[in-house]
Order: sequence, then structure tokens, then C-alpha cells
Amino acid sequence: MPERVLIYSRFPKAMMAPIAQRYDLLDSKGRPIAEVFSPQELSEVRVLISAGATPLPTDVMDLLPSLEAIICYGTGYDGIDLAEASARGIAVGHSPAANAAAVADLAVTLMLAVTRRLIPADAYVRSGDWAAAKPSPEMTPRPGNPGRRVAVYGMGAIGRKIASRAAAFETEVAYFSRSRHDVPYRYIDSLAALAEWCDVLIVAVRAGADTHHIIDADILRRLGPNGYLVNITRGSAVDEAALVAALAAGTIAGAALDVFETEPHSPNALTGFSNVVLTPHIGGHTADSHLAMQACVLANLEAAFQSRQLPYPVVTGA
Amino acid sequence: MPERVLIYSRFPKAMMAPIAQRYDLLDSKGRPIAEVFSPQELSEVRVLISAGATPLPTDVMDLLPSLEAIICYGTGYDGIDLAEASARGIAVGHSPAANAAAVADLAVTLMLAVTRRLIPADAYVRSGDWAAAKPSPEMTPRPGNPGRRVAVYGMGAIGRKIASRAAAFETEVAYFSRSRHDVPYRYIDSLAALAEWCDVLIVAVRAGADTHHIIDADILRRLGPNGYLVNITRGSAVDEAALVAALAAGTIAGAALDVFETEPHSPNALTGFSNVVLTPHIGGHTADSHLAMQACVLANLEAAFQSRQLPYPVVTGA
Repeated sequence: MPERVLIYSRFPKAMMAPIAQRYDLLDSKGRPIAEVFSPQELSEVRVLISAGATPLPTDVMDLLPSLEAIICYGTGYDGIDLAEASARGIAVGHSPAANAAAVADLAVTLMLAVTRRLIPADAYVRSGDWAAAKPSPEMTPRPGNPGRRVAVYGMGAIGRKIASRAAAFETEVAYFSRSRHDVPYRYIDSLAALAEWCDVLIVAVRAGADTHHIIDADILRRLGPNGYLVNITRGSAVDEAALVAALAAGTIAGAALDVFETEPHSPNALTGFSNVVLTPHIGGHTADSHLAMQACVLANLEAAFQSRQLPYPVVTGA
Repeated sequence: MPERVLIYSRFPKAMMAPIAQRYDLLDSKGRPIAEVFSPQELSEVRVLISAGATPLPTDVMDLLPSLEAIICYGTGYDGIDLAEASARGIAVGHSPAANAAAVADLAVTLMLAVTRRLIPADAYVRSGDWAAAKPSPEMTPRPGNPGRRVAVYGMGAIGRKIASRAAAFETEVAYFSRSRHDVPYRYIDSLAALAEWCDVLIVAVRAGADTHHIIDADILRRLGPNGYLVNITRGSAVDEAALVAALAAGTIAGAALDVFETEPHSPNALTGFSNVVLTPHIGGHTADSHLAMQACVLANLEAAFQSRQLPYPVVTGA
């Protein structure tokens, strides 16, 4: 009889299909687990799969007295209280770098699309306005990539891949992260100075309490009227109210966002801007990337049920 | 008194502004010149500016007996009958490579956008369907860039820049052109074999009579159901009816087009596809690129009026 795994977050069915072939899934479909499963069922759960960003507070851990491992599908684990997991001897695993290329690809796609007004350009052709020779202010020539100053905030696996891709467009790349890395890009020693320097600020820092709303009104002011913001990490890193205010006032040039503070909700105020590109948290969402993430999840699950060290650990268990 | 220059194609006013500062422009606004100007005015025209793709047949040359130089704004000159210009001692100039980075950037932007379904992704967020958790077949994970086979057809200044940008996304790049070049990409010795090999075919060959409809039903069949077509050169290179048929039948995966057979018209049949990205011939359309093209045009104009060799020649004049 297969082991049981609790699916704690809401996942599309296809993502869990390879997991379902080997395990018996208790799928909460993202609803509160106490409403979906009996205390008896929950008390037997040894391993769960979460989406990393989904909050998993101590009162949820209290419902799961046999929990030995939390396996995050994806790179992030910002919803998990790591100190509490550690204190309870619960191991935490993730899928490190499995989606780095896919996320970096989307980050650069977003930069290219927003600076070139790709969404309005496509709409201009489809609407017939181009054929009607109707002038469009959206189609005014804007600065191109050569010489553009691209700032990468965060120099992990994703940040490195963003930097190497962006550099291929004859841009100048610089970065800030907590520490200097052995990379061929200029290091700027604060986020504020990085925002002052750049034309495009790409947020690729690991999300957590220390980066909550780190892109605030002050950073956006430093980015300035020719500056674009691209966010592919977590919505929590950006103060969305400040971003909407900056876009409305024209104090930044535009923004491209794959992640939002309250997903799956993008602020309604954002949808009115033409200098914005919005995608539904699809950064890691390619076929190859899902295969790689599923391989990490399966390896973590197997180790967890055998009470071995997780091969892709964030927190070592008991 | 400033020299007079005939503006033969239809250009946005801003593009000609730096030219208008030094020359007196006879602007046809794209209408037939015989309808706009008197025979006397036309008989005095020594130099004209054209958009390269605009047909400039011999009967137009007949209206311009004093014509010494045709200056193309941009890289292309496929609308000009070069043999006839040469026979009449009319020099032809263009703006070589001035827009290569901008065009290559758009080519790669189009590849990234169409393979990632960026247009439907943005629409999914803006419509509220994401917030409503309405499933979208458009958002199914698809193959990513690492390992993707990207084919560049044509290895001029634009083709080279496309190849170096595409390679930064961990793709495998190959090319076909009339001759082998000293570039670090695999050479495939026919367009048919290139189309068979690749996942994405980017058309960057110089347009002309020899490349008219070179992307036809046979090439599209070889591209196959997982293959994407990207065209940033000229609409004439692609048989649009065959492309529409292939998209309708699902025998190719998608297409991204900046250029069309009859501009400014994109076939209505194309606008119904979600696996298509359409842009209004904005490849070379960045601020830096226009400055560079204007500098070429001004240098060519100055030489033409001084009866010197054009600094950026296609055909040497009398």
C-alpha cells in the first residue's frame, strides 16, 4: 500500500500527476486542511507537499503531530516557519535551481516586452489601428538595449542566469546582493545605489521577512521616470500600493510582474496601465522545469519516507 | 537656400525631423508623387528618401529626370530596381547595420514571447480569469529554452546578433545562409534541412526576388507541429496564405511576425490565433536605432548633394 502524502497548497492536477503515480495523495486543493480531513487522517500525515509561498504557520503544524517533512515544490520556502520546523524536528526540502533557467528566461522576456511595449504593439496590429494608420503614442521609439543599465537584485542561481541573458543584449549589467559573488558583473553595494544607477531593476532576491516590501516608494523614486521594475521572485518583495502610485504618477517608466502580493490577484489598478506586463506566476512554468522540480520532489519524498536526509534540504529534520 | 529632398515613402513626422532641419522636404506622405507634385517640381528632384521596401519602379524614375541618388532609410532596399538605378547612373544608399541590434532584440523578444504565450498570459491576468481560477489551456507548461534548437536563416549583421542573443538562453543555434561564416554556430547546408532540424526558425535573410515566398508550405511542413516561425526581415519572404493554413491546421506550433506581405495590413486570419504574436514593423524602431539610421541618411544626403560617393552605398552612381 502506497504511503500517504498531504497536498497542502492548491496545485494544477498535471503537476502532481507523477507524484500520484507513486503515492496516495490527500489533496486539500488549497482549502484549510482541518475543513477537508478528519483529525485522525491528519494525525497520520508524515509528509506534505507545499508551494513554498503558501503560509504554513505553527497552528497548522499542531494539526500534524506525525509530520516529519515539508517538501516544497519549487525553489521558494518563504511560507514555512523554518525555526519552528527545526524546533519540531521537521525536515524542509525544496527544488533548488530546478526552475532557474525558466524563471530567468521569463524575467528577461518581461524586460524585453515591457521596454518594447510588446503587448500594446500586438493589440495595435490586431485591432486594425495599424492598418487604419491610426497614430499610437505607444509606438513611439524608445531607448533600446545596447548600453541599457540592467540591475539584478540577488545573485543566486536565477540572478546569475538573468545576468548572463541580459548581457547578451549588449547591456551593462550590475548587481547587489548580501555578498559579492565571483561573477563578471559590477557589484554595487546597496539596493538604493543599484536603483539609482539602473534603467531596469530585476528583483531576483530570495523572498523572506527581510525582503518584505524591500521595493518601496523610496526605491521606486530612485529608479526614476526612465526606470522599469521587473519582479519574478515573490509579490511580497514589492510594496504594490507604492508601485501603483508610482505608475499612476509616471515617476517610473513601467513594470513587468510575474508575482503579486495576494495571488492569484493582480491589483485592479495595475490592469489599466499599458506600460505594464502582467503574467500569472508562470516563471518556473515550463515542461522541462516541472520535470526537474518533480524529480526533486520525488527524491525528497523517497528520502523522507525512508527517514534519510533529504537530498535537497532547507532544514535538516530530526 | 536649402537643397530639396523628395520624401518618397510614408514616414512618421518624427523620423524625418532631423532631416527637415537641414533640407527642404517635398513630402509625398506615401501618395503617388505625380498626384502630389507638379512635373516641374519633380523634374528638379536630385535626391529622394525611400523606405527601402516601397516599390520604386522605372516609371517613377521616368518622372525624375534629374535624380542622382535614392537614399533608403533603414537597411533594406528591396523595393528599388538596382539594375535600373545603376543603368541610369542613380546612386542608391542605405543605413547598413544601424538597426541590427534593435531588429535582433525584437526577433528574440518575439521568439521568447510566442513560445511562452506572453500575450495570452497577460490577457489571462488582466481579464480576471486568473483571479477567478478559471483554467486556461494557454497556460499549459510548454518546452523551455534550454536545449531548444534555434535556427537563424541569414547570417548578416542582424542574423549574428540574433544568434548570440538566442545562445545566451542555453539554446542550440544553427544557421543557413548562401555561404558559411566564421561564427561559432553550426552550419546546415539548406533551408529545408534547417527547418527540419529546428524548433524555432528565425528569418533574417535579406529580402529580394530570390527570397520571395521562400518560407512556403514545404518549409512550414518541415518546421512541424512543435516548430515556431519568427519573421523580422520582410513580409515577402513568407507565403502568408501557406502560413495561415499551417496555423489553422495546427501543423506548426505558432508564429511571431513583425513584417507582412502588404503592410500596414496583417491578414485578418492571423488575428484570431492565440499562438501568434504580431507587431507593426517595429524591428528597427528604437530611439538609438533611429538616431543611427538618421546619421546614415544625413551622411548619404550630404555626399549626394556634393556629388561625392555615398558613404553607405548599395549602388554607386554616375
